[in-house]
Amino acid sequence: MHTGVCYFPEHWPRERWADDIERMAEAGIEYVRMAEFAWNRMEPEPGEYDFEWLEAAVDLIGEHDMQAVLCTPTATPPKWLLDEYPEIRQEEPDGTPLEFGSRRHYCFNSAVYWRESRRIIENLADHFAGHEHVAGWQTDNEYGCHETVRCYCDDCASAFRTWLREYYDSIDDLNEAWGNAFWSQEYRSFSEVDLPGPTAANHHPSRLLDYNRFASDSVVEYNRLHVDLLREADDDWFVTHNFMGDFDPLDAFDVSEDLDFAAWDSYPTLHTQDAPDTPAPEEMGDDLQRAGDPDVTGMNHALYRGASDGPFWVMENQAGDIRAFPYSAEPDDGMIRLWTHQAAAHGADVVSYFRWRRCQFGQEQYWGALNNYDGAPDRGLEEATDTAAEFESLPDLDAPSGDVAILVDYDSLWATHAEAHSPDFDYWAHLRAYYRALRRRGVTVDLVSTSADLEAYAALVAPSLHLVDDDLADRLTAYVQDGGELLLTIRSAMKDEHDHLRDELAPGPLAEALGAHVAQHESLSPGVETQVSYDGESYAYQTWAEWLEPDDGTVIGRLESGPGTEEPAIVRNAVGDGHVEYVGVWPEADLADAISVGLLERADVPVSERLPGRVRLTERDGYTWVTNFGTDAVTVDAGSGTLVLGDETVSGRDLAVVDAPAHELEIDLET
Amino acid sequence: MHTGVCYFPEHWPRERWADDIERMAEAGIEYVRMAEFAWNRMEPEPGEYDFEWLEAAVDLIGEHDMQAVLCTPTATPPKWLLDEYPEIRQEEPDGTPLEFGSRRHYCFNSAVYWRESRRIIENLADHFAGHEHVAGWQTDNEYGCHETVRCYCDDCASAFRTWLREYYDSIDDLNEAWGNAFWSQEYRSFSEVDLPGPTAANHHPSRLLDYNRFASDSVVEYNRLHVDLLREADDDWFVTHNFMGDFDPLDAFDVSEDLDFAAWDSYPTLHTQDAPDTPAPEEMGDDLQRAGDPDVTGMNHALYRGASDGPFWVMENQAGDIRAFPYSAEPDDGMIRLWTHQAAAHGADVVSYFRWRRCQFGQEQYWGALNNYDGAPDRGLEEATDTAAEFESLPDLDAPSGDVAILVDYDSLWATHAEAHSPDFDYWAHLRAYYRALRRRGVTVDLVSTSADLEAYAALVAPSLHLVDDDLADRLTAYVQDGGELLLTIRSAMKDEHDHLRDELAPGPLAEALGAHVAQHESLSPGVETQVSYDGESYAYQTWAEWLEPDDGTVIGRLESGPGTEEPAIVRNAVGDGHVEYVGVWPEADLADAISVGLLERADVPVSERLPGRVRLTERDGYTWVTNFGTDAVTVDAGSGTLVLGDETVSGRDLAVVDAPAHELEIDLET
Amino acid sequence: MHTGVCYFPEHWPRERWADDIERMAEAGIEYVRMAEFAWNRMEPEPGEYDFEWLEAAVDLIGEHDMQAVLCTPTATPPKWLLDEYPEIRQEEPDGTPLEFGSRRHYCFNSAVYWRESRRIIENLADHFAGHEHVAGWQTDNEYGCHETVRCYCDDCASAFRTWLREYYDSIDDLNEAWGNAFWSQEYRSFSEVDLPGPTAANHHPSRLLDYNRFASDSVVEYNRLHVDLLREADDDWFVTHNFMGDFDPLDAFDVSEDLDFAAWDSYPTLHTQDAPDTPAPEEMGDDLQRAGDPDVTGMNHALYRGASDGPFWVMENQAGDIRAFPYSAEPDDGMIRLWTHQAAAHGADVVSYFRWRRCQFGQEQYWGALNNYDGAPDRGLEEATDTAAEFESLPDLDAPSGDVAILVDYDSLWATHAEAHSPDFDYWAHLRAYYRALRRRGVTVDLVSTSADLEAYAALVAPSLHLVDDDLADRLTAYVQDGGELLLTIRSAMKDEHDHLRDELAPGPLAEALGAHVAQHESLSPGVETQVSYDGESYAYQTWAEWLEPDDGTVIGRLESGPGTEEPAIVRNAVGDGHVEYVGVWPEADLADAISVGLLERADVPVSERLPGRVRLTERDGYTWVTNFGTDAVTVDAGSGTLVLGDETVSGRDLAVVDAPAHELEIDLET
Ligand SMILES: [Zn+2]
Ligand SMILES: [Zn+2]
Ligand SMILES: [Zn+2]
Repeated sequence: MHTGVCYFPEHWPRERWADDIERMAEAGIEYVRMAEFAWNRMEPEPGEYDFEWLEAAVDLIGEHDMQAVLCTPTATPPKWLLDEYPEIRQEEPDGTPLEFGSRRHYCFNSAVYWRESRRIIENLADHFAGHEHVAGWQTDNEYGCHETVRCYCDDCASAFRTWLREYYDSIDDLNEAWGNAFWSQEYRSFSEVDLPGPTAANHHPSRLLDYNRFASDSVVEYNRLHVDLLREADDDWFVTHNFMGDFDPLDAFDVSEDLDFAAWDSYPTLHTQDAPDTPAPEEMGDDLQRAGDPDVTGMNHALYRGASDGPFWVMENQAGDIRAFPYSAEPDDGMIRLWTHQAAAHGADVVSYFRWRRCQFGQEQYWGALNNYDGAPDRGLEEATDTAAEFESLPDLDAPSGDVAILVDYDSLWATHAEAHSPDFDYWAHLRAYYRALRRRGVTVDLVSTSADLEAYAALVAPSLHLVDDDLADRLTAYVQDGGELLLTIRSAMKDEHDHLRDELAPGPLAEALGAHVAQHESLSPGVETQVSYDGESYAYQTWAEWLEPDDGTVIGRLESGPGTEEPAIVRNAVGDGHVEYVGVWPEADLADAISVGLLERADVPVSERLPGRVRLTERDGYTWVTNFGTDAVTVDAGSGTLVLGDETVSGRDLAVVDAPAHELEIDLET
Repeated sequence: MHTGVCYFPEHWPRERWADDIERMAEAGIEYVRMAEFAWNRMEPEPGEYDFEWLEAAVDLIGEHDMQAVLCTPTATPPKWLLDEYPEIRQEEPDGTPLEFGSRRHYCFNSAVYWRESRRIIENLADHFAGHEHVAGWQTDNEYGCHETVRCYCDDCASAFRTWLREYYDSIDDLNEAWGNAFWSQEYRSFSEVDLPGPTAANHHPSRLLDYNRFASDSVVEYNRLHVDLLREADDDWFVTHNFMGDFDPLDAFDVSEDLDFAAWDSYPTLHTQDAPDTPAPEEMGDDLQRAGDPDVTGMNHALYRGASDGPFWVMENQAGDIRAFPYSAEPDDGMIRLWTHQAAAHGADVVSYFRWRRCQFGQEQYWGALNNYDGAPDRGLEEATDTAAEFESLPDLDAPSGDVAILVDYDSLWATHAEAHSPDFDYWAHLRAYYRALRRRGVTVDLVSTSADLEAYAALVAPSLHLVDDDLADRLTAYVQDGGELLLTIRSAMKDEHDHLRDELAPGPLAEALGAHVAQHESLSPGVETQVSYDGESYAYQTWAEWLEPDDGTVIGRLESGPGTEEPAIVRNAVGDGHVEYVGVWPEADLADAISVGLLERADVPVSERLPGRVRLTERDGYTWVTNFGTDAVTVDAGSGTLVLGDETVSGRDLAVVDAPAHELEIDLET
Repeated sequence: MHTGVCYFPEHWPRERWADDIERMAEAGIEYVRMAEFAWNRMEPEPGEYDFEWLEAAVDLIGEHDMQAVLCTPTATPPKWLLDEYPEIRQEEPDGTPLEFGSRRHYCFNSAVYWRESRRIIENLADHFAGHEHVAGWQTDNEYGCHETVRCYCDDCASAFRTWLREYYDSIDDLNEAWGNAFWSQEYRSFSEVDLPGPTAANHHPSRLLDYNRFASDSVVEYNRLHVDLLREADDDWFVTHNFMGDFDPLDAFDVSEDLDFAAWDSYPTLHTQDAPDTPAPEEMGDDLQRAGDPDVTGMNHALYRGASDGPFWVMENQAGDIRAFPYSAEPDDGMIRLWTHQAAAHGADVVSYFRWRRCQFGQEQYWGALNNYDGAPDRGLEEATDTAAEFESLPDLDAPSGDVAILVDYDSLWATHAEAHSPDFDYWAHLRAYYRALRRRGVTVDLVSTSADLEAYAALVAPSLHLVDDDLADRLTAYVQDGGELLLTIRSAMKDEHDHLRDELAPGPLAEALGAHVAQHESLSPGVETQVSYDGESYAYQTWAEWLEPDDGTVIGRLESGPGTEEPAIVRNAVGDGHVEYVGVWPEADLADAISVGLLERADVPVSERLPGRVRLTERDGYTWVTNFGTDAVTVDAGSGTLVLGDETVSGRDLAVVDAPAHELEIDLET
């Protein structure tokens, strides 16, 4: 486990570089990411390349035995390129093109931009091929940031038609698959199909789904261009990309298939303010604003570990206060270290801070760094230095791998968000309701795609796994037959892969295994009574309720409010050696805990006591991190293990590491 | 009184039709509406018509002695038509055209679309002319839905100029009528007048008013094309249109003049969440969300009874949970039946459920139906079947007709909404303040246009009848002279027909009859004190206050808060055999009740006790429905009548019918 | 001190004018503003001028010994001009042009519009040159109203490039100044620079800053055209412009340099609802809604007195209820008089009511006036008449001039608003926190630009003086050296004139004088603890905190909450004969008071007791107005002075005038 940093030599006079880089080495940093937005310094005039400055910076880095991570600079095509080829600009749904002056102003389907990207990448990669201090590459930067995955230009319209022609056998096949008999939406040929532009009412959800798949695939293809060109130049480099947390429009699993591993950019105070399942900033108070929510961040670590199928990187790790929205509070003392350890515990091999020094100009002046804008150490540098030393003291560890996985399915995300059916429904938030509950029981939770090897897990949670095709249904059924424990939740398996309701009620192809089906669903506003029983206890739920009708399945819980009172809401069925359980409500925390414990027990996964507040146990390769995101101290009983880092008492914002599995530890609030 | 259902044979395999239609007949259904969006099935290729499938469905319906209601399919022109004639698309104010992919993407003033509409309607009508099982037609579908009445295309610009040339004698006449001396807005010719596009500040209200009149008239003209073509083909058919509740941009009276009767689409849980005078969903709780507000729905029944000048239809009646915004709670048991009876009580001759079966694809998958998406009965089917049987048990009844009418004036609506002068002013909500009060006294209330026969009513309420021309003023004055009781409210008769303030203070041409005028008006935020006296008692009001100055009129109430304290706010005057009363505040419920009771007493209209909560009495042709939208049971003392349906105790969500007029009944909360 | 009124003869039949004007004279009015929007009456057909009607009105005014103030009518180019030259229209960022039908639909950089403006102004000015009853001119009307300073048309793009070529030596100079190394934003030539149109992410703040400067300068240039043409025609006229309160996009100091004095349009109930530092309308209750906030209005008086460098005018003074947003409550009795006196006390030589009579048509029908729309006196006329008489009874007075100035810097405003870093940061509101505190101590506060003569003041407050170039830093340092008392606040002197962070930490070039620098800053949401000490007491603050690091400076206050607890937040340093104090938090009222009192004491400025609630003392040329914007009566101890107006007891909404300086008065709540 190592640390890195993001550095922009092009922002500073060359005479400062040596000093900066020397101080990075002193801080224990081993990787330096550079050049992600520097196209106009690499090619100041069309066709005139200049990599000398960058090589000089790489060489300086090498002098201190650090490694450079370079970037393809395509997120910011220079002005001369846009002026020469204005057709590369992304377009809004109403046809307004995105102008020069910020970033990500290009279309993923522009043939011209593919050609220009190829040109700069080839030249850049050729220049650094074989350089002993270039460890690898980041492609582009944060694909899709600022809502730029989905473009509505003519190039995209053509590409969408091509995509559809490949996906569907014929236009009749598409009409049938989408259900275009509805509202006279049938097409006579693929050439009649447009992008989903401005319409009077909402769009056809099946058309939107395919458009969203196409848009995500467009990024996959464009990223593959980068990967292929980089590998052609030098096969020893790694290639990664820095993703953006739980981000809707891009399928991180698909992109990652072409990468050596995935990376992501982690800003806990920003993501915690953004998350739909945290209180509004005005209500979250100091505590969350200054530390972030451990599960908002943790679930992203798990997601990109899943996308990596092993260790991942945090390419940008929050290094101080940042340009968070809406508010930018200073993190509490200790948080830079705690966030960095948390990432490592979840399987990050490198945690790279953003950035070395606050920038004196441009759009990110308010973004904190390890050093202040005068070049002197900022609040985080000492913590970063300490953390690097602590990483040194620990052995190299394999990535964590859990007994429990949550299935993440971007198709289901897009389908449910296109028809959220409630302002309070959010796919990630619903998923996190289960993630949170499992994590408060100390369990390692993998987030994996539906194409993952399901048999690797003792228990599977499929939250709002909305679209289930026959193949997936068969695999899930087989999984349970073979002894797996499957948990389905609201909206799971309601529709087929084209976002159609099936001829059978939900969970459609899994209804037989469940021994029950969903008779009704409803979305409920705050202020409406929402109570449900589970295993004889009464619990609160939120947002969504379904009324089930059992055949063979056993009713475990019933609605206790509304016209559905007494209707079954939670049903379980034994199938082969395993069980399917369906939870027809969005559980509040206590119910999510009860359901999770039941699941773990059936799956023979060891369960810890419910952890206090925001304390988390995170196990990696036999070592367990005790991270305390709260403010009250806890004590650690290390069981058979020993404390390899920290003390028996772990204060708020502090941590400890024990060389024992999580379930052996006992954590108590200090009395 | 009969029931119907909406059916989309084009969504289902033909082999299912017979079974579906047989089960409709079993449910007591007598009318089946079909084909409203099926243009591309009627004309799959330009000029190649196919009505065979539809005729087959009609024939199946006929086999069960039911009648079909067919639709002109113009709400969804197919893709090939838009591709051939992109100029038919509606345009947003900034010129963005509405694209294909939902519905209502056409302009009402497109000459090309008129020609194409004529072509499909003629062919369709000719095909079914004389068919014994086609009872009538619905033109298009929900004109103006998704804000599509007002278009900003070049065709509309020309049509607007033509409209203005017909309306005004000369451009000088228009300049004078609008008041274009203001801000240098005078035109030298009609050809200089544009549509109201994007401007720096707000638009001239008189120009907006005429634009809104023109836009509504454009729909009237387009609808008349449908009506004329249908009647040319077969004079025995009825022709109706399915309107959309209390909908702003379209004058329902004007459109209805060309129809045999009006129909509307009733979704109580949706409209109740939308209504500005109901609590926000988060605050309305279970009760309203699961039953709807009886007066939100009831006032729409009255509106379309008024537009029909007799019995009306509910063309789409909520059949279960729907795709309501923002939340979609399941209705309580009994509500499908209760809503259907409520419609009948208000004068609906046919109540037609939307829809037979949940659709498996497209934009309305979340819209409930009598049958679930697997084809099996959904929650509402049994209630619908019971209701049909109950309708059978009742005699055919004439439409209700009240002694009290509320004047509805779309010109006043458009004028007040263009200059609402408060975020809390809403024309329909203000009107409903009086409707609610009268209905809680068991009174039948008609909603009629200003051109109605006023003499038919003992009392008239003219809420915010903002624009009053000399002719209307004369008619209202004559009405009072002849013994009528006229109630004017805030903003009534403030302006002339061009949205001009007059040389005389409000109520302008009615000020003499009132014996008072309005000296000041103000809009008041929540949190400001709003208290007023009326007949010696003190009451709360909201949103708006006026300070009156009496001449001959008698002061009935005075402001009791703010700088207007002691200023007259409610004035009454005896004129001939009747009275004019002016209420210069927006009354809260208790004041609205007191005012209403006073009005009824002066008009010699029988008054019941104030009904408990959401219980309503609705009288139709000598029969009175007791509908209990609340949750507490009430007892019915039937007076001289007998219970022909239901029991003496009417539980929440239940009803009874008595063969006696409403004022004879006595309703009490069950003790 | 005199009163005036705005009159629109073109709105009324000519036969009414004589009566209207006679009644103005009877009300003591001395100035009548006319013709600001009357281009189409001055030139009804292209090239055909008609000034006869206007001259007739001026002559009638002259007959009553009043003076006319005429306006260049360019805010509303007529339809024929737009039809002939559509290129003069302003454009939105996405290229949508502003259409005819309201006002301000022209671009300040249109060469065609300059030519047309020159033509109408020359003709108009020539016509009235030498007219004895035309006192002066108002240029255009409310430049920038409805967000029209910033245009995105091609003419503006060219003009922006020209502006940049003049400002910067070379494109390299611009690239360096803006910091275009960030995100590959470097340009190779000025011709590559565009206007800031739609982009994926936010714009480069330095580019925005220059665009905002350019846009403001464009108004300055256009206004100078007016001024030059008017003065060419007749050098005796005054020329002014009616500005719009604390308005962001236009530098009032720059425009005013070309004017004889500045005027502004004062609508207290509107501005008070708008102000970010007053409660939301729903929470402000009757009191503020019916009287307005004295400091919201007062600070604008001070601003335009500063822009005038002497007496100013209120060109439009609220005369009753108006079309305020969102709510329009009637002002309390007495407020028209109180607002008029308040303006005079602050240095207005003429207070001109808007308008004589409510307009019967057009966009401002709901805008109150001295007379109602029937022509009879409205609520305010009597108060206006009384006030004119009271002005008569007072001597002519020089403008107030204070010992304390607040520095207003539009560059800093634009920079902080482009990167507000908190939804709660507002430049004017922060500035007003200090203005309020000083005013509650009876102090006369000037608002001046950074180019003002600083030495004229004993104390200077520089709230969020964000951009400080070396020259200003030198002048401020010299000011303190010479005995001045300088107060810097949050964000002050953080950046250079190009919106760059410097190599030195804030307050950059003033850090040495302060003997401290800013180590950290953070923005804090409501709900986060915000406590700070000052001089041993504990106080609340809001929104923003900075952590200081002292060198020579003395720590006066420390943070008492959050991770910065114990960090210095307020530091003071003695420099030469004066002091610099830096306040690193946004103070709540009590802290602002304590800081202000300290500042005044160090500066030897007399300090009154803290005034009750919304009572204010305003001193002008030896006379002091006691204005009571509250509702509770106060008593006035006049010290050495005598009451020249009003009584010893000043009720709510009332006033008194004493011929003594403010600090001699003692004000107490009546017991
Ligand atoms: Zn594109
Ligand atoms: Zn149109
Ligand atoms: Zn322009």
